[in-house]
Amino acid sequence: MSENKGNAILLFTCPDQNGIVAKISQFIYQGGGNIIYLDEHVNQNQQFFSLRVVWNMNQFNISAKQLHQAFEPIAKQFQAHWRIEFSETKLRVAIFVSKYDHCLQEILWRYHMNEYQIEIPLIISNHPDLQNIAEANNIPYHVFPISKENKAEQEAKEIALLRENKIDLVVLARYMQVLSPDFIQAFQNKIINIHHSFLPGFVGGNPYKQAYERGVKIIGATSHYVTEELDEGPIIEQDIMRITHKDTINDLVRKGRDLERIVLARALRYKAEHRIIVDGTRTIVFD
Amino acid sequence: MSENKGNAILLFTCPDQNGIVAKISQFIYQGGGNIIYLDEHVNQNQQFFSLRVVWNMNQFNISAKQLHQAFEPIAKQFQAHWRIEFSETKLRVAIFVSKYDHCLQEILWRYHMNEYQIEIPLIISNHPDLQNIAEANNIPYHVFPISKENKAEQEAKEIALLRENKIDLVVLARYMQVLSPDFIQAFQNKIINIHHSFLPGFVGGNPYKQAYERGVKIIGATSHYVTEELDEGPIIEQDIMRITHKDTINDLVRKGRDLERIVLARALRYKAEHRIIVDGTRTIVFD
Amino acid sequence: MSENKGNAILLFTCPDQNGIVAKISQFIYQGGGNIIYLDEHVNQNQQFFSLRVVWNMNQFNISAKQLHQAFEPIAKQFQAHWRIEFSETKLRVAIFVSKYDHCLQEILWRYHMNEYQIEIPLIISNHPDLQNIAEANNIPYHVFPISKENKAEQEAKEIALLRENKIDLVVLARYMQVLSPDFIQAFQNKIINIHHSFLPGFVGGNPYKQAYERGVKIIGATSHYVTEELDEGPIIEQDIMRITHKDTINDLVRKGRDLERIVLARALRYKAEHRIIVDGTRTIVFD
Amino acid sequence: MSENKGNAILLFTCPDQNGIVAKISQFIYQGGGNIIYLDEHVNQNQQFFSLRVVWNMNQFNISAKQLHQAFEPIAKQFQAHWRIEFSETKLRVAIFVSKYDHCLQEILWRYHMNEYQIEIPLIISNHPDLQNIAEANNIPYHVFPISKENKAEQEAKEIALLRENKIDLVVLARYMQVLSPDFIQAFQNKIINIHHSFLPGFVGGNPYKQAYERGVKIIGATSHYVTEELDEGPIIEQDIMRITHKDTINDLVRKGRDLERIVLARALRYKAEHRIIVDGTRTIVFD
Repeated sequence: MSENKGNAILLFTCPDQNGIVAKISQFIYQGGGNIIYLDEHVNQNQQFFSLRVVWNMNQFNISAKQLHQAFEPIAKQFQAHWRIEFSETKLRVAIFVSKYDHCLQEILWRYHMNEYQIEIPLIISNHPDLQNIAEANNIPYHVFPISKENKAEQEAKEIALLRENKIDLVVLARYMQVLSPDFIQAFQNKIINIHHSFLPGFVGGNPYKQAYERGVKIIGATSHYVTEELDEGPIIEQDIMRITHKDTINDLVRKGRDLERIVLARALRYKAEHRIIVDGTRTIVFD
Repeated sequence: MSENKGNAILLFTCPDQNGIVAKISQFIYQGGGNIIYLDEHVNQNQQFFSLRVVWNMNQFNISAKQLHQAFEPIAKQFQAHWRIEFSETKLRVAIFVSKYDHCLQEILWRYHMNEYQIEIPLIISNHPDLQNIAEANNIPYHVFPISKENKAEQEAKEIALLRENKIDLVVLARYMQVLSPDFIQAFQNKIINIHHSFLPGFVGGNPYKQAYERGVKIIGATSHYVTEELDEGPIIEQDIMRITHKDTINDLVRKGRDLERIVLARALRYKAEHRIIVDGTRTIVFD
Repeated sequence: MSENKGNAILLFTCPDQNGIVAKISQFIYQGGGNIIYLDEHVNQNQQFFSLRVVWNMNQFNISAKQLHQAFEPIAKQFQAHWRIEFSETKLRVAIFVSKYDHCLQEILWRYHMNEYQIEIPLIISNHPDLQNIAEANNIPYHVFPISKENKAEQEAKEIALLRENKIDLVVLARYMQVLSPDFIQAFQNKIINIHHSFLPGFVGGNPYKQAYERGVKIIGATSHYVTEELDEGPIIEQDIMRITHKDTINDLVRKGRDLERIVLARALRYKAEHRIIVDGTRTIVFD
Repeated sequence: MSENKGNAILLFTCPDQNGIVAKISQFIYQGGGNIIYLDEHVNQNQQFFSLRVVWNMNQFNISAKQLHQAFEPIAKQFQAHWRIEFSETKLRVAIFVSKYDHCLQEILWRYHMNEYQIEIPLIISNHPDLQNIAEANNIPYHVFPISKENKAEQEAKEIALLRENKIDLVVLARYMQVLSPDFIQAFQNKIINIHHSFLPGFVGGNPYKQAYERGVKIIGATSHYVTEELDEGPIIEQDIMRITHKDTINDLVRKGRDLERIVLARALRYKAEHRIIVDGTRTIVFD
């Protein structure tokens, strides 16, 4: 039996115009590829076309190596932003944590269940607390304590370490430190966070306390890209849970943990399967 | 067969202390009443006890008329705020509308289905548009156009009309005018509103446009008491609906209508069944 | 300004193979059409390809009348089942009711809000009860009382009336009569029903009583195509609502009404927008 | 500072009659107890009264040891079934597993987060596969392979082991063996299971395959008491997740794991907090 070459995944955006799908699907057909997923979207003001198309590489007569070059003329013709990913290439993910373990544990469990096509070469923390979890999972754990004074220096070391490990995605799994603009720019659209509220409600610290005091009847969690404005990056996924007057702040924290876990896990899945395109302050998540 | 006297509903709050339930349940037992609902709540800081208890009046040896006086000594002993309502007395509800009909239609349909123990003696609007709906339902429709100049004068007329009609509750069913502090104080804790966002997100105007631009993945609606701070009153009920990047602002408006209808309808139900106690910025909704 | 010709909507299924999207998108491109929606699906056993594609007809150089003939060669090449619908052509819908009005009212309200691209030329019932609702909406109301003896005869009259009115879709809006196999065959895949349970649980009569007695914690409603096996047709849409031990059967009926309304309304929307393809016992609903 | 004696939790059912709450709350008040939770329910046919009341023991002048005897006369007067539990006494829970680890991992994580007031003295399995998880958590793991021939014998050993360990509750966390009637009778109302469907739909084996083939739009999971009729015991908790035509059976299995985890975890929580009363084929879950 021949090697399984997996799928190619094209993410493609350009100004809307006639003939885009025709051109791209023709390209795939001529190469001998069978499309197994195609979804497109034109945004509300009709200016921004986006596409996700997946085809099988087994019978495809352009190799993964040559594909980028072969496709480039089409992309140029449409003035597109684009990239091609391969299902057989694992996304290299670094997880940042502080003291809470629930998001980390959830990701690791799914990682071992092979729910994600990812590798986790390292975990970074500003605290030593979760070292033993990393060890039990045989993943290197790097502690960088952060203070006002050493922040720039420590972040520089973290960036170097991430680059050394060829990290594609940084996941802030309840990491309780605000990243500097320099760090964020170094990993543009490559950092996702879980915020423990239904954004845009309750930005900043202690959202469960804020939620309790405001007396909302539903709490939420939000996974979003990290940008320089705190809790303002494009939203990837949200979910909610009903609460009542009986729930104390501690109950919200407990119930919220379940939301945080599930919402971050879904966002990571969308990233790992290359389903997300950022369109300004919004995301397109192809399902 | 004897007359059905329905139920008495006691809503009771006081500083928490021993013996409250014992005293009140003893009072009901001695009168020959059978408790059919009892739920209590002590809030997080343990200071505020609240209770809803319902008992049948058929065999009760204190009449509805005498009940207030008979119960008063117990209330005094506990320094309580309290009221007793009767399931056979219909809440008198005035509905305020502008041009959108969906919340009004929803309430009227449930009203005719006898889902609520209410009467609707009148509908008030700042526009003539929904007159025909009122007429089809045989409900008087009063138009008070509002401008900066005449607002105080028109509201005074509205208040007079509401008092004349012995209105217990004002329901703002997508009424597109901010009520003045004078109006709000005249009906303290007697005005409920539907806001077309998941509060505290997207206060003020055009929340669906705000939601679209922020790129949220879930929209919501919130029914709350009206207080002098816009969209800041105690929340009674909320619900949400998942959206995607495919939804335009018009789709949000359309989907949101369903949320607004259902959330306001539930809040009105809680009011009509005397299930709500306001505890500062929060509500206790006994279910 | 020129006439708005709206969109063409192609629903297309065939055995899966390479080149389908390329061929169809090329056809649209050559005609001068701009694709505004394209989604495809290949089912689990990889045998059944299905596609929904929508393009604007304004600049398209093949007229709506000629389109069927022009597209036929492509369909033949792929041995496809297919049809082309036009967004400007309203689906002609007949609503069947008995005594409950909630599903009918819901559809009529959305109809008047222009949520659907449909016409409702008539309402058919086995009871006279909802005549006044039909009249208030200026829709002819035909009563066909059904008994064991006259069922075949009455259904024949109904079928004739539906054909006379060129009905595309029959919506059973809590119609409390089982249709005969003859009727169902006359409108293959053109009859949708709302069943007041979460199928496959609680088929047949009195599902809320069944749900109460089984003690489920969640109730549901299901809209499905009507086939000859009762409550066994392909499911279009389902939704659920949480209940508790406090809910009596009457509460389930009341809560369930809201589910039935919303689920049937959504299913009708999917039909009106030509989003559904039947794949054996399952449906593909392109969203 | 004095010892924290925690709370007493009374679960009480009897034929409905006047004066029950008065009597019980008087008993608590006279002992010096402060009620911190009280909820009651009378079922639909008005025959079955049930009550959960919680009071603090710190100032209570009847000790935990004497409480049973002190309360008995009241229970007798009302011909009640009842029990008193104490929040400081941990429920002793045995977990049964086969090869799937997700429900076990979920429970263990919450156990270590102190979400439950339980102890887990042992894990029992018919397979050795999850031994290492048990070891990592320092919990004894007992393997009892089951065949037709040895089933009675092995179950007898399991029962002996459970009794030795004074087990209060058996949790079947995707245990893939049907328990014999003898086993079930030995732990009447003390065995809870997680079934991977929205009961009563898809009883028995392979529910995700059944769900796929029926084409449902929503899947579910159900935690219930184990009785002698397979998947027919009183339901404690259910939850659901929306699916689409895109989901394969494997996707349902993956998505369903999240449901199974969360639904079983909630059911265990209700048991650990003594919130459940069984009323025939139904449960009352006091929230």
